[in-house]
Amino acid sequence: MASHWEEFYKTHLPPTDFEDNRSLLKEFCERHNSTGERIALVTSGGTTVPLEHNTVRFVDNFSAGTRGAASAEYFLEQGYAVIFMHRTKSLEPFTRHFNGQKFMDMLELHDRGPNTTITVKPDSVDVLAPVLANYKAAQETGKILYVTFTTVSDYFWLLRAACECLGPLGPKALLYLAAAVSDFYIPSSELPTHKIQSSVGAPTISLQLVPKLLAPLVSLWVPQAFVVSFKLETDENILIAKARDSLNKYKHKLVVGNMLQTRRQKVVFVTPESSYEVLLSREQMINGMEIEDLIVSNVVISHSNFLASFKY
Amino acid sequence: MASHWEEFYKTHLPPTDFEDNRSLLKEFCERHNSTGERIALVTSGGTTVPLEHNTVRFVDNFSAGTRGAASAEYFLEQGYAVIFMHRTKSLEPFTRHFNGQKFMDMLELHDRGPNTTITVKPDSVDVLAPVLANYKAAQETGKILYVTFTTVSDYFWLLRAACECLGPLGPKALLYLAAAVSDFYIPSSELPTHKIQSSVGAPTISLQLVPKLLAPLVSLWVPQAFVVSFKLETDENILIAKARDSLNKYKHKLVVGNMLQTRRQKVVFVTPESSYEVLLSREQMINGMEIEDLIVSNVVISHSNFLASFKY
Repeated sequence: MASHWEEFYKTHLPPTDFEDNRSLLKEFCERHNSTGERIALVTSGGTTVPLEHNTVRFVDNFSAGTRGAASAEYFLEQGYAVIFMHRTKSLEPFTRHFNGQKFMDMLELHDRGPNTTITVKPDSVDVLAPVLANYKAAQETGKILYVTFTTVSDYFWLLRAACECLGPLGPKALLYLAAAVSDFYIPSSELPTHKIQSSVGAPTISLQLVPKLLAPLVSLWVPQAFVVSFKLETDENILIAKARDSLNKYKHKLVVGNMLQTRRQKVVFVTPESSYEVLLSREQMINGMEIEDLIVSNVVISHSNFLASFKY
Repeated sequence: MASHWEEFYKTHLPPTDFEDNRSLLKEFCERHNSTGERIALVTSGGTTVPLEHNTVRFVDNFSAGTRGAASAEYFLEQGYAVIFMHRTKSLEPFTRHFNGQKFMDMLELHDRGPNTTITVKPDSVDVLAPVLANYKAAQETGKILYVTFTTVSDYFWLLRAACECLGPLGPKALLYLAAAVSDFYIPSSELPTHKIQSSVGAPTISLQLVPKLLAPLVSLWVPQAFVVSFKLETDENILIAKARDSLNKYKHKLVVGNMLQTRRQKVVFVTPESSYEVLLSREQMINGMEIEDLIVSNVVISHSNFLASFKY
């Protein structure tokens, strides 16, 4: 049985940086609401479930955060202000294109003692310049806010706080819930304090279902917002049925379904009325286009139609 | 009961890039052996235990890889060639000092159309230049080899392959086993093919003990090498006793014990004859010194003494 979401908040403390993040979220939402902008909340990366209070081991969900990080870039491109709520160390917009060694390899050291300079190699400038320009523009215009979570309980606290701040935007708020949230957790009261000792033999871990936050989120926290959830499966036969179950149950606007194996080429949009595939053509793939570009364009069109239905 | 290590290899396939990595390891070890250099194998980061064949969920060990990545830099400084065997996405030597956003923030874009240039801001050159110089020197002299693992089974295959290549170096090989390897796994035969469905209720996961590779490593694979293992605990009362148990059981040279909470300031060196603390003074901490600098210096002295004992 899933515990009730209210129970979950009662038995899990907020993360230590919670109040700081809440202030940042509040300031960000108020600022962009006052100028009439749309805000996309993009959640990204997996959550962990600690197996010990002094956490050495945890259960994790597979997610590098590619979909969320890429999508955040495209929402910025479409003029949205973006709250990028992501798992610590998961991919981030812009920097995702270059890992640490790639950065180092692009640099040239001109050692001249106190007048030493470092420049980007000319042939790397072409790739780096547009990404750097977009990164700096987003920073300088205050269009992006980064907040991070690690455990599923951090995620719960942050998501509710973000919703509280997004509420006043009404339908101008778009929630793009791409994070891979754990379905299971170990109740705090049952966690051992210290590292499980292997000398006592292999443990058996009893997990409990994590309550689905979509329920209070859609019905209570941001009832006017445009909410998009994601569904990842490895078995294609059940994907659409599960997406439709989710829409029936939570009454949000859209489920983006994807298969683990083909998620870079194809997704299926499932709405209460219809379902259709969004996929990259061979040519688009060869040209280096990302499927997130298409997903976000389609989501933005739906959001615009949704907003238009509110006028008059 | 722990399964036997030979059984583990029989029931777990090598990772797909295994042969490539084995060739790289062989070439690296032969090259440095032929010039009489010492090689340090540094393992770093945590391993995962998949909960499904099409992996969506896995159990992970907490480790950013700071200790291994920092230590690799200090081994290079001490003249060692370094095999840096680390978890995908864990910290790496040199790049660990700068995450993606830090890199971006150090850069200045001078937009001049086709003559656009990107330079590192003058006040960042001071920090970046020495790190970049060391990174490039290690690359250009072929002193470092990066190989990566994700699951505990990847780690098993890679470690044995590295040992096979390090064998011919005899006592000149130093193994610095800083990776946080899972103690538990789920036998491959018991893994479900598809993502566990939350609709069937919360699962109970039965784990099995991972065989300890230190046993065949010390007695069979690199019997002449200088082997250092690490022990991380959260309960100080049992740390030294557990380190000594490990030395008695596996007959290697040194266990570096550390507490999760104080591991950046203090470790304890446990040898068959003695145990002593290695810790950063307040002054060293203020000057930005890292404890890995001290750990590696101490390990290198022990390794040199060990090598000297072989002569004549």
